[in-house]
Amino acid sequence: MPFQYLTNFPLDDAVQTYLDALNTHGLSYKTEEIPIGLALGRITSRAVYARICAPHYNACAMDGIALSARITFGATETTPVRLQESDFVRVDTGDPLPAGCDAVVMIEDVIEEDGQVSLYAAAAPWQHVRQIGEDISAGDMILPSFTEVTPAGMGAMLAAGVMKLETVKQPVVGIIPTGDEIVPPTEHPGEGDIIEFNSTIFSSMLTQWGCLPRVYPIVKDRLSEIEALLRKAVDECDAVILNAGSSAGSEDYSAQAIRSIGEVVLHGIAIKPGKPAVLGLAQNSSQAGLVPVLGVPGYPVSGILVLEHVFKPVLQQLTCRQPEKIEHVQAVVSRRLNSSLKYREFIRARLGLVNGKTVAVPLNRGAGVVSSFVKADGIIDIPQDMEGYEAGQSVDVRLLHSLDEIARMLVITGSHDPLLDEVADIMRRTWRDSLVASSHVGSMGGIMAVKRGEAHLGGIHLLDEASGTYNIPYLKKYFPEGGVVLVECVERIQGLMVAPGNPKGIQGFADLPRLSYVNRQKGSGTRILCDYLAKENHLDTAQINGYEREEFTHTAVAAAVASGTADAGMGILSAARIYGLEFIPICPEQYDLLIAEDALQLEAVQRLLEVLKGPEFAERLKKLGGYTLNKPGEVRPWN
Amino acid sequence: MPFQYLTNFPLDDAVQTYLDALNTHGLSYKTEEIPIGLALGRITSRAVYARICAPHYNACAMDGIALSARITFGATETTPVRLQESDFVRVDTGDPLPAGCDAVVMIEDVIEEDGQVSLYAAAAPWQHVRQIGEDISAGDMILPSFTEVTPAGMGAMLAAGVMKLETVKQPVVGIIPTGDEIVPPTEHPGEGDIIEFNSTIFSSMLTQWGCLPRVYPIVKDRLSEIEALLRKAVDECDAVILNAGSSAGSEDYSAQAIRSIGEVVLHGIAIKPGKPAVLGLAQNSSQAGLVPVLGVPGYPVSGILVLEHVFKPVLQQLTCRQPEKIEHVQAVVSRRLNSSLKYREFIRARLGLVNGKTVAVPLNRGAGVVSSFVKADGIIDIPQDMEGYEAGQSVDVRLLHSLDEIARMLVITGSHDPLLDEVADIMRRTWRDSLVASSHVGSMGGIMAVKRGEAHLGGIHLLDEASGTYNIPYLKKYFPEGGVVLVECVERIQGLMVAPGNPKGIQGFADLPRLSYVNRQKGSGTRILCDYLAKENHLDTAQINGYEREEFTHTAVAAAVASGTADAGMGILSAARIYGLEFIPICPEQYDLLIAEDALQLEAVQRLLEVLKGPEFAERLKKLGGYTLNKPGEVRPWN
Repeated sequence: MPFQYLTNFPLDDAVQTYLDALNTHGLSYKTEEIPIGLALGRITSRAVYARICAPHYNACAMDGIALSARITFGATETTPVRLQESDFVRVDTGDPLPAGCDAVVMIEDVIEEDGQVSLYAAAAPWQHVRQIGEDISAGDMILPSFTEVTPAGMGAMLAAGVMKLETVKQPVVGIIPTGDEIVPPTEHPGEGDIIEFNSTIFSSMLTQWGCLPRVYPIVKDRLSEIEALLRKAVDECDAVILNAGSSAGSEDYSAQAIRSIGEVVLHGIAIKPGKPAVLGLAQNSSQAGLVPVLGVPGYPVSGILVLEHVFKPVLQQLTCRQPEKIEHVQAVVSRRLNSSLKYREFIRARLGLVNGKTVAVPLNRGAGVVSSFVKADGIIDIPQDMEGYEAGQSVDVRLLHSLDEIARMLVITGSHDPLLDEVADIMRRTWRDSLVASSHVGSMGGIMAVKRGEAHLGGIHLLDEASGTYNIPYLKKYFPEGGVVLVECVERIQGLMVAPGNPKGIQGFADLPRLSYVNRQKGSGTRILCDYLAKENHLDTAQINGYEREEFTHTAVAAAVASGTADAGMGILSAARIYGLEFIPICPEQYDLLIAEDALQLEAVQRLLEVLKGPEFAERLKKLGGYTLNKPGEVRPWN
Repeated sequence: MPFQYLTNFPLDDAVQTYLDALNTHGLSYKTEEIPIGLALGRITSRAVYARICAPHYNACAMDGIALSARITFGATETTPVRLQESDFVRVDTGDPLPAGCDAVVMIEDVIEEDGQVSLYAAAAPWQHVRQIGEDISAGDMILPSFTEVTPAGMGAMLAAGVMKLETVKQPVVGIIPTGDEIVPPTEHPGEGDIIEFNSTIFSSMLTQWGCLPRVYPIVKDRLSEIEALLRKAVDECDAVILNAGSSAGSEDYSAQAIRSIGEVVLHGIAIKPGKPAVLGLAQNSSQAGLVPVLGVPGYPVSGILVLEHVFKPVLQQLTCRQPEKIEHVQAVVSRRLNSSLKYREFIRARLGLVNGKTVAVPLNRGAGVVSSFVKADGIIDIPQDMEGYEAGQSVDVRLLHSLDEIARMLVITGSHDPLLDEVADIMRRTWRDSLVASSHVGSMGGIMAVKRGEAHLGGIHLLDEASGTYNIPYLKKYFPEGGVVLVECVERIQGLMVAPGNPKGIQGFADLPRLSYVNRQKGSGTRILCDYLAKENHLDTAQINGYEREEFTHTAVAAAVASGTADAGMGILSAARIYGLEFIPICPEQYDLLIAEDALQLEAVQRLLEVLKGPEFAERLKKLGGYTLNKPGEVRPWN
């Protein structure tokens, strides 16, 4: 049982234990002197003092004449003081104040009459003079220690004769990708090749945290090779990340490699995803410094979470940056979330403000689903001692986007169609502050989300078996009191997607019993259509191979067919086209938008309706194929 | 009257007029294709679609055996299913799912008995398989247009076979510094040399806004040279800043130069500082694109404000970045602020939260005082139609730091001593989240600030003429009801700072009538001491040359003496030492801290008291010189 060697430390304890171990071994930041021009955003490692005054001489602050103020005393509008050329010096702004002068009279107030100069007002001593040190005096502290350098701070240092400053050195963080199947990013990976994109994600996170990432070449799953490269990285870097092989399987060498050149402080944290992290350390033999070494799980979501929660506090000790304030929000969770009592769980979620209520829609929880981090607006943090949340319960969410952005988010929850992404993109091209969060939960999910006030709108295409009509019968059933508007979107063609050339000679739904099938999830409009067609064709769905295999989007079904693991699946023409599949049309259907009445006046909804009616939408749908546009964007009376 | 040519456009109108003119002439962003690895923080210029599925094959998600789930149906704890080697394939995580298989059983559940494999539970179809497209399906939109690329977004693109993406090109912004007296930054500028640090400030601001700054060599105040370099910059850049010479004086060529190669949209904005900005445009002759050209005033604060308020909205059209949300706070202004009805005025201020009230302490308003931007936590925005604010009035402040930081700020308002900066620095070295805002308003200013609840504490050294004692008589007078604590700080020596070698043979205060003097501001402890000494020496201060010349810090007085514009000034030994001045000791005095009782329990105040009692403080003061430490940090009973 290989997993028995992993501990299950609570996260906060694990981080504290790790920091304590590192500090006991003398973890410390390094410093370097850099020119001011390179200092933007860097952290001072000691206070910076002015070397010279700014301005460094008494400077005239106006174009005009410099003089001793005393000789102007008594000048008024009726009794001007008249001056000889020898009484003053003509000066421009920035000129040094001439010796013997203590004031400047601006040129507008210098009246030249009869070859003489007249002043109709007395000058005050030191008027229009930028006195030496007015801005900064030599010796003044310009910036204290551990302060981030700003543009104005750079200007102030240069003004005060400071050409270089001592800063905290940006830690170099090595990233070692390991694994036999790992290949560099490519458009054409072979089957079984795993594209190594983690180091790109990690590098970017490190850059954002003020570190300098250094990515090493991919190393194979051989202990000796991993050890050798780790030794080299520890000697070249201030911290090292060993990616993948952090668990306790037969080819998981991270813990062993770290132990062989240093020390494993702990192995295994009670978080999900991210459990099999290895928290280690080693000594840099060339610079006699301590190097934190982190073994990170291979799945990208695990890796991101372990870096964020475990390594960031360590790196902040090396960068001397203050942790930013983490913003949280209480949100209503849109569906039941189970969680194990063994782990503290982090679940990515989309957020939106619907009808005054912040709603969290959990995303795919898979540790390998990096796209969930792209779509996420926040992270639901389920404590270790919680078994999860019921739909409608309030949960704590760590924000990834600002509340301001979340308030602007148009929340679309319902049936999947690629046209929704196109609409979102057109909105963004027209109004750059548009934000759309769309979740694919099927048509019935959309109806329920709008009904519960958790979405502004949803796409639906629901066939009513009794009447053979779309959508309206469902609205009558689920919204007997009204409160929602049905907006026409498109007519689209559903059909069977099959391999190119249709090698199995599939003609229709009646062929299903002899095929392997891939289906859509229960509650989706397409599933309801399949169930209807099965009944119409007198098929026993329990006998259809793969009828219970569920995918959540048209493209995911097409991908399954294209990969050869299913002979057919139901979907729309545009999905079949993307995958070069043959398409056997079954029936047209009406895909509409269900919009909460309260949401109708929102600017984002108005923008969306405008897009539906516009030429760009029609053009893009023509390219996708399989759509008929009648009156998109028009309200369809239904009750 | 050269200034009559400048207009006085209200700021918002000016910006709108400028944007309208630029858009009429076809201002537009450019795009470029870049590899994913360089895309962090960049803005997509079109939607990005997945080229392949992620994963791109059906992958085993566990180490174990792959098989057809059907053959395991019926397996239970009591009736295991026994398998032959030919029934399954041994697989590792990440392996392609072998042909004919649709499930993986994890190795822990594979029981090897008598050369056979037994399963005690049935496998569900597709269990422990990462199905093709589980994360991303080919054809899915990964990122919509005009979206900032995040680390996870980069990972998602690489996972989906996207190697490059089309982004908004970062605009190249040329900066041309102009002026005859301008010299590159140096530690040893000559008299009359003006250090050119604006281009460093502007470059850094542009970098923060997502632009690529390009600084041109300094050009002299000659129209033909400025025109030639401007022509070149317009051809090489997407936007150009011409710095200084933006007014309408005889050597102010910016407007003329812009007009000669393009168009001046408007010249002169009703803001202070920043009025003489030139808002222009020209055509790039090589790329046939429109180039915004901005003439920016020479004073750094004016330049920063004009860039921020006028050019940033223009550059956002080129970067396609959304304006960040600007945070505001209502704060109580600590002193009267006058403002002209002719201008909208921007005044830098320190902010702090004292006793539940946000307090704004206005900083030096000079357009040349770049250090005010270093110290500022916010900008007080006085509308054009306001004559200013009374002390205690509530004002709108645009935040430069977060409210969280402002809440942590220890507000010290009172007499100046360099030891306060040292204390702040020691605090920061010990507790990195420490923030101290200290304002030099003199001892009496400190008393009033603490009394009005606008500071947590202040330094005071106030001689009571009647008793000859320090500080306590003032507390008895101004805090008859108590509410404040007096904490001992240091004894320090005041004296006359004079030129090295004391060429005028100054022996004491009695020599003042024959000298030129530089004084401290009214209300400062040092000024009160001077007034007392003058009285004791029977001097008529009206007859002392320079007695009304006021500086706000010891170092500023020292700088005036060092520059030769004054023969003597009163100050402390450490200030004299920094400037290499001779020091004629006059008297020791007690410099203490007055702390509001409410503030005493604040963590920041406790930290400060700890610092006063520590060895680092004693050591630093020994280096500064002129201080005697008795019981620093101890509370002195006074009532």
